[in-house]
Amino acid sequence: MNLHDAIIIGSGSAGLTAGLYAGRFRMDTLVFERMSPGGQILLSPSIDNYPGFPAGLGTEELISRFKKQAEEVGIDIQSKDVLEVKRSSDGFLVRTSEGDFETKTVIVATGAQPKRLDIKGELRLTGKGVSYCGTCDGPLFKEKDIVVIGGGDRAIEEALFLAAYAKKVTIIHRRDEFRASMILVEKAKANPKIDFFLEGVVEEIYGENKVDAVKVRNVKTGAESQVACQGVFVFVGILPNTDFLKNLLDRDEFGFIITDQEMRTSQAGIFACGDCRKKSLYQVVTACGDGAISADSAYKYIINKK
Amino acid sequence: MNLHDAIIIGSGSAGLTAGLYAGRFRMDTLVFERMSPGGQILLSPSIDNYPGFPAGLGTEELISRFKKQAEEVGIDIQSKDVLEVKRSSDGFLVRTSEGDFETKTVIVATGAQPKRLDIKGELRLTGKGVSYCGTCDGPLFKEKDIVVIGGGDRAIEEALFLAAYAKKVTIIHRRDEFRASMILVEKAKANPKIDFFLEGVVEEIYGENKVDAVKVRNVKTGAESQVACQGVFVFVGILPNTDFLKNLLDRDEFGFIITDQEMRTSQAGIFACGDCRKKSLYQVVTACGDGAISADSAYKYIINKK
Repeated sequence: MNLHDAIIIGSGSAGLTAGLYAGRFRMDTLVFERMSPGGQILLSPSIDNYPGFPAGLGTEELISRFKKQAEEVGIDIQSKDVLEVKRSSDGFLVRTSEGDFETKTVIVATGAQPKRLDIKGELRLTGKGVSYCGTCDGPLFKEKDIVVIGGGDRAIEEALFLAAYAKKVTIIHRRDEFRASMILVEKAKANPKIDFFLEGVVEEIYGENKVDAVKVRNVKTGAESQVACQGVFVFVGILPNTDFLKNLLDRDEFGFIITDQEMRTSQAGIFACGDCRKKSLYQVVTACGDGAISADSAYKYIINKK
Repeated sequence: MNLHDAIIIGSGSAGLTAGLYAGRFRMDTLVFERMSPGGQILLSPSIDNYPGFPAGLGTEELISRFKKQAEEVGIDIQSKDVLEVKRSSDGFLVRTSEGDFETKTVIVATGAQPKRLDIKGELRLTGKGVSYCGTCDGPLFKEKDIVVIGGGDRAIEEALFLAAYAKKVTIIHRRDEFRASMILVEKAKANPKIDFFLEGVVEEIYGENKVDAVKVRNVKTGAESQVACQGVFVFVGILPNTDFLKNLLDRDEFGFIITDQEMRTSQAGIFACGDCRKKSLYQVVTACGDGAISADSAYKYIINKK
């Protein structure tokens, strides 16, 4: 079996940048993607905060540029679902839906996905007012009414961020206590633009071609009400796509892969980059930075092993 | 005195991306630059490996895009030389050539500069044939013989650039292996104008009012020889611009600032990003990733502090 230098699992911003750098290092590299290239960023129609595009850019256009750039240095992107990775005598055996592959190093760039509410209207109105990223889409909601769903750090941080743009932000949270740190909650409470709807569960999102309102049920009384809004930001967690690696790599309680600054995981020869790893800021530019570093680290790993 | 949220020192790729993110967080932010925006990347004419530009891009164009993007979110870039940073009751006092400023957080993005060889003739002939910037000085050496010293990406990239002008380029490198990407080394080897002198150390630069030749010693045999040339381009590494912070922050033996994955330095409230910090891969895309993370960490630091 052909022994590759690197197999990159995933073709979002992190995986494609890892491919670009691996190609420039002249590593014999395959990229396996489960569906089409892109990852979480395609949940937003456009992106304003990727450095280099002051006028913003469609996310599909950005991903297609990443892909083209990786392919131009000779990276082979193949549609294959990775089922398992295990150690072999020469490195690693990567089992896929369409056969087995051998490689000296593995770069995990499988990304994550936002946890969805799984309610009526949510999928249909995604990108039409329903968003899973305030940093990406906040500026689109200047002087609008926004609902933020969630009670963790991320939800409150995003609510504070969004309040700088929105007319009003209503945080809807199903408990009357927060997982978020009190300091964040206090800041939100002190912000005149932020309201709270506690012990409320959003059951439906209304709107024809864009969001009009949400239906909220009080978990104590059962009473139903509507909150009018143009934006619904859902922050009820993200799920890293790492279950197939749970017996191989150290992960945190949510499944994010633990790495050091050089993207090295708990298994020598396996690197992780982008949204699937535990880190402080999940953005396209940080995914790209991670990807470049992981390819460099894989390259050094191979060189130093010879 | 007005208390700012963040003062970013430096306006290269890292500083401008930190500015972009700080602006999006609605932080009251100043960027201080010593000269003009850009940093080390402007020493190269164009860049192929910044994700998003498959056809490559001029570095001045890329930096002007970064700057425009930061300014569009309200970031104020000012020409000021920072002399000292010290703790104050509310955060930090930043002393500059043109007055003092107070800020809750500081983001150090001061970059690095080319390392010198520290050999006889080098300083005396700088600007008279000795150069640290191919982009700047390459066109002055049309049909001349040039020596390039170094074995990293930068050295090989510059050799390829200079070969477009020079009659001959000799790459002198002290090892017989390269840190540079194989794709670059292969291109250089395929270029009929480029020769290699491996396992060679340049010990002196000869010339009265302009460069005539360099003295090279073979590190294995000890044999000395001369290579006649009119230009000497030195690419042997970088020195971080961090001396003014030496009493405040932990640095490594070369002066690079030590940070954790969230760009936090040894002083709470001070963050560092880009080429001035210790890390494994010094690239524009990693500088940008660092910049975004440092702004996010500064934002969280302020939020979590009463």
